[in-house]
Amino acid sequence: MLSKNKIKYIHSLELKKTRKEEQVFLAEGPKLTGDLLGHFPCRFLAATSSWLQAHPDIQANEIAEVSQEELSRASLLKTPQQVLAVFEQPQYTLSPDFARQSLCLALDDIQDPGNLGTIIRLADWFGIEHIICSQNTVDVYNPKTIQATMGGIARVKVHYTSLPEFIHSLGDAPVFGTFLDGENMYEQPLSTNGLIVMGNEGNGIGKEVEALINRKLYIPNYPQGKETSESLNVAIATAVICAEFRRQAAWK
Amino acid sequence: MLSKNKIKYIHSLELKKTRKEEQVFLAEGPKLTGDLLGHFPCRFLAATSSWLQAHPDIQANEIAEVSQEELSRASLLKTPQQVLAVFEQPQYTLSPDFARQSLCLALDDIQDPGNLGTIIRLADWFGIEHIICSQNTVDVYNPKTIQATMGGIARVKVHYTSLPEFIHSLGDAPVFGTFLDGENMYEQPLSTNGLIVMGNEGNGIGKEVEALINRKLYIPNYPQGKETSESLNVAIATAVICAEFRRQAAWK
Repeated sequence: MLSKNKIKYIHSLELKKTRKEEQVFLAEGPKLTGDLLGHFPCRFLAATSSWLQAHPDIQANEIAEVSQEELSRASLLKTPQQVLAVFEQPQYTLSPDFARQSLCLALDDIQDPGNLGTIIRLADWFGIEHIICSQNTVDVYNPKTIQATMGGIARVKVHYTSLPEFIHSLGDAPVFGTFLDGENMYEQPLSTNGLIVMGNEGNGIGKEVEALINRKLYIPNYPQGKETSESLNVAIATAVICAEFRRQAAWK
Repeated sequence: MLSKNKIKYIHSLELKKTRKEEQVFLAEGPKLTGDLLGHFPCRFLAATSSWLQAHPDIQANEIAEVSQEELSRASLLKTPQQVLAVFEQPQYTLSPDFARQSLCLALDDIQDPGNLGTIIRLADWFGIEHIICSQNTVDVYNPKTIQATMGGIARVKVHYTSLPEFIHSLGDAPVFGTFLDGENMYEQPLSTNGLIVMGNEGNGIGKEVEALINRKLYIPNYPQGKETSESLNVAIATAVICAEFRRQAAWK
């Protein structure tokens, strides 16, 4: 069973301040929790008896068997599902070699937790292991972000740092960004290393970072050159550009 | 100013039942409202005095000048912005010629309003004019969907019908769908007409519709053939596949 204090603790993990103090994050549901167990130390797990019976070898500091009704009171989801767990935040060390030797993503002040989670999920799909976020990017341990990664957070490493400083450390590695006046990405040779910078939902890439981008790309719309007020969601744009980098690497 | 009844009416547009009875939908914010005015008849518009002064030629059955505080009480958004408006739902006639002669999307029971809105936005980007939804797909006039289209709803026409019946009416037009055992889309010739079917977030394409798909495609991950539990969000998958259809049409 779950004490009132435990439910209060779980709800408090909606707040970045608490997550940071405790160095933990919350994950919910059998698919996501199953993916994360074994990747991150588990501080606390609450599950229905049927889930626990199906998973007898769970490693966690504390395990609580709960009714569906108790789970619903603790959960942050609209439709709570069988299990939730509190994991320790991993500590990663950032190196410029990541972007010198492999393709990485940089996010310049992405604000929507769902967008960040979706980008982590697609980075996982496209074999991108490191995402470097500006300090003002939304917290990766926001529960909405964690849920949207669909387990990608177990494999993709997310770092927070000053983007201008990180880019300065890269030497001559290519730094890509998308701009309306960039080069058509289908007509440009794309590399298997370097950094792809994606900008804020409303304002795009900031001026300081833009000045450090040495490969300006454009994602063409269709039919080419039509004039409309259209644009792409940042997670959608990230997917389309990552797909093209990987197509050129593997199937061109 | 806004009466209590008017605020109640606006809030009631969160419900599909009310939207259907009234044949209207709600849009909020200067960018979206501006995009939709002129495309759909406006039944009611509420805006701050500064917005109204900047837009003196608004055509609407009823216009209310409101304070920021009144707007906040009426709004469904976390951060209400200057203007909201109630528009009439358009009536479109569906024809199999749409998919015989141009590239269309079909959505088989998409459930998330944000996903549907994001798909409408990217369809607009990729020049896809018609989206055909199964009857169980989430309502396009859900306020979350409308907001996520970012104005794409002014140009993309969304139809609801029985997908099996619609596909049967297409004759020999190609009907595409993505499957784990499909053909690598980068190695297949893709057409500029036909239907791309995208499936439900959890369950993919239903069996009845799957049986009618004559071109099974696969979106390759990277590096190819790695074994993980990864997957793509349906809006992301839609974007990547639409981008490849358009790349082949325009830049191959």
